[in-house]
Amino acid sequence: MPLEDLSHLGRARHFWIIGLGSVAQGLLPLLRERLALGPDQVTIIAPDPVAGFVNGEFGRYECLALDAENYQQVLGARLRPGDMLISVANTVCSLSLMRLAQERGALYLDTVIEPWDGWYENAAFSHSERSNYRLREQALQVRGSVTAVSCHGANPGLVSHLAKLAIGHVAERLELPAQTPRSQAEWAARARAIDLRLIQVAEYDAQQTTRPRAPHQFFNTWSADGFISEAGQPAELGWGTHERALPPDGHRHGFGCDAAIYLAKPGYQVRVQSWVPRVGVYQGYLITHNEAISLPDFLTLRDADGRVLYRPTCYYAYRPSDATIASTHDLAARFWQRADTRDGVLIHDVAAGDDTLGVLLGYGRHGCYWYGSRLSIAEARRLNPQTNATTLQVAASVFAGVVWALENPERGVVEPEQMDSARVLALARPYLGEVFGEFSDWTPLATRDPMFARPCDPDDPWQFSNMRLD
Amino acid sequence: MPLEDLSHLGRARHFWIIGLGSVAQGLLPLLRERLALGPDQVTIIAPDPVAGFVNGEFGRYECLALDAENYQQVLGARLRPGDMLISVANTVCSLSLMRLAQERGALYLDTVIEPWDGWYENAAFSHSERSNYRLREQALQVRGSVTAVSCHGANPGLVSHLAKLAIGHVAERLELPAQTPRSQAEWAARARAIDLRLIQVAEYDAQQTTRPRAPHQFFNTWSADGFISEAGQPAELGWGTHERALPPDGHRHGFGCDAAIYLAKPGYQVRVQSWVPRVGVYQGYLITHNEAISLPDFLTLRDADGRVLYRPTCYYAYRPSDATIASTHDLAARFWQRADTRDGVLIHDVAAGDDTLGVLLGYGRHGCYWYGSRLSIAEARRLNPQTNATTLQVAASVFAGVVWALENPERGVVEPEQMDSARVLALARPYLGEVFGEFSDWTPLATRDPMFARPCDPDDPWQFSNMRLD
Repeated sequence: MPLEDLSHLGRARHFWIIGLGSVAQGLLPLLRERLALGPDQVTIIAPDPVAGFVNGEFGRYECLALDAENYQQVLGARLRPGDMLISVANTVCSLSLMRLAQERGALYLDTVIEPWDGWYENAAFSHSERSNYRLREQALQVRGSVTAVSCHGANPGLVSHLAKLAIGHVAERLELPAQTPRSQAEWAARARAIDLRLIQVAEYDAQQTTRPRAPHQFFNTWSADGFISEAGQPAELGWGTHERALPPDGHRHGFGCDAAIYLAKPGYQVRVQSWVPRVGVYQGYLITHNEAISLPDFLTLRDADGRVLYRPTCYYAYRPSDATIASTHDLAARFWQRADTRDGVLIHDVAAGDDTLGVLLGYGRHGCYWYGSRLSIAEARRLNPQTNATTLQVAASVFAGVVWALENPERGVVEPEQMDSARVLALARPYLGEVFGEFSDWTPLATRDPMFARPCDPDDPWQFSNMRLD
Repeated sequence: MPLEDLSHLGRARHFWIIGLGSVAQGLLPLLRERLALGPDQVTIIAPDPVAGFVNGEFGRYECLALDAENYQQVLGARLRPGDMLISVANTVCSLSLMRLAQERGALYLDTVIEPWDGWYENAAFSHSERSNYRLREQALQVRGSVTAVSCHGANPGLVSHLAKLAIGHVAERLELPAQTPRSQAEWAARARAIDLRLIQVAEYDAQQTTRPRAPHQFFNTWSADGFISEAGQPAELGWGTHERALPPDGHRHGFGCDAAIYLAKPGYQVRVQSWVPRVGVYQGYLITHNEAISLPDFLTLRDADGRVLYRPTCYYAYRPSDATIASTHDLAARFWQRADTRDGVLIHDVAAGDDTLGVLLGYGRHGCYWYGSRLSIAEARRLNPQTNATTLQVAASVFAGVVWALENPERGVVEPEQMDSARVLALARPYLGEVFGEFSDWTPLATRDPMFARPCDPDDPWQFSNMRLD
């Protein structure tokens, strides 16, 4: 099928790309090709030279670290109405860029609500202060009419669209009356109608590298520093109305939307069971992510007085690549301090494997539904030689979000849940390999320990306590 | 330095090798070379054909699975006085072979007290019944005058010799009066004299493979099935007199020597901090091993009435290869069920790395001492092309134990602690790469979590509760 002609969206505007990590490197060829951008239409701002990256090929490269002191000066006067500002950088504050874009009338998109450098490692903050929950509450305060898409990578981002579409698939399977919800409340009602209790962002990264790793090195398939930051934050999860008891280490924030809780443990120490097609049951780290808050918030049903009637539990169950698991094992012994992350991203030295990324919906009591993308390293390379399976899944979603923003330029600050999910998935789909759904009768009650008894709630498979392995 | 001539020890006796896994494959060239064995002097009995293994090269190969029904018939009539029976097989019962060897007047050595097939996975057993503690109590009941060496691989085995020698090194450092203990009680007194609180068998396997792994495959550097068996047993540790409280999941057996306890958790779920030179702090699995019982039992000091005055804590802190860690992560989600272990041993496809295996002695309050072997894959291959670093460390120790048994043929059932450790280490040393000791001021108090507070006993760094990470 020929790709849709989107070249009119790229005309007469400038694209500002903040960051030149693996995602930016995967995104630039997509933007150039699909939006027919000339190199004079793109400026890339990032701190470090990148091996193999040719300045001028995709745009002008400014080798510069944006920080709280210089970002106004560097970007302020140059950002023009209708420009597109895309942040895919670590340690550049999303809120600052978002506000600047609104002031200048520029469109905006990021893949995560990122703080300025040093925030993640600041031991003076409380767990709640270091949470994505708090960052999101701050982002939702930003006002303006120009479209600013918050958190639109693979996850957060694409997975919220997958979740909304998956709710429709389950409704169809259950033979509910056909209906496409048109508001937040209608989406929440639909989720309740299928008895949706759990949404896991279920990712199994089976990519394998041939690169030997020394004990202090940290390898990952998208960003070593990025993973270390998020995995060292407190674990966070949207907290459903079906949950019978707060976890022993669980806490409410006491401010904001109250859709999510945090655990007094870093994500790399919290392990949960999950399930994806072909692999079956797997173990994931419960890493905090924006979608674990925005998605259950979006699916919260309230009565006329604002009291919560229904909400599903939601969290990320991330099984990173083998090399990342070994890196995590080692860094955990040092309580997340002192990793060597130089050259820590595996792109060209991935030898085999695929990334299975989707949503697992636990509904009712007898089974689940997984819906998502499975992309092999071979297919990713064929589509875009600068990527691996993971970074192409992210770049595809960033690209789709950018196009949606260009098509819908006056929506103010939006989260993925508020966008047209069918449109976004259609835009990303050519780069996602197999996109498919699979129903299964798996629940955590089907995988118990025969040798060492563990507490279990047999009445509701989807209780968080049943999924937890640590 | 030329290797010692040991050829007289090999004359006029037959060697029976049970098992043809990675350890046997590493051992056979050593035995042939050092004991000048002809192929007619060696019989190998193992169930499965081994790719690349030439029948007749090292001995006669009988492709046969020994079991409880056939072992008497297969071995009974053929085993002759003075023969050497070496068991390096999974699922062949050590006690049965040990008794048979005594009956026939044959020497015996194994690397682990192994039960018949099906024992490890028998959920009808209690945790205590599935313990190495119980297996050892049974082995200690075997009577006879012919030397039978119990548990003499790298660990259990070599590490007990390293521990005894390391106690001497620390005593020297502390300027205690020079003295070589000559009895169990003198060894225990010496350990107490240096205020020895903790012996960790501290192993960091940094070997790296280039072989891609599928999600259900299990890779390891010596045996996938062997590791799965031991890591699925309850964690066991020698329990020192300095420990202030039994762990919440800890239990005494209520029979036998009482030197060790078990946890109501499988070893793959129990994580501890440890330390080895060059790597520094690392995370190990507390996998049950015979030395975690035999070594603290040997170092137990009792008064005239048999009351325990002193004992160190002792356990294995195993950091297996990266590929094994990823395999463990996946299999843990299935509660240790259904792994694909075919071709699971990494020998010729190890690309880089080394295995650091030794003992970490925590004594007093201000530091520790590590003593052991660091062997690189390159050096292991140079010494013996059929091995990797791990299997050569094991084969070296089996070889040394066999020679010691041939030199001391009338000692009955012995554990490594009762052997001449200087002699055994001298025999193994040519195959161990660097053998060295390193003092460090590291204690677990030096590596605490700055972001997530954990309970800690600052008065005694070597409390088990301080080392535990899970």
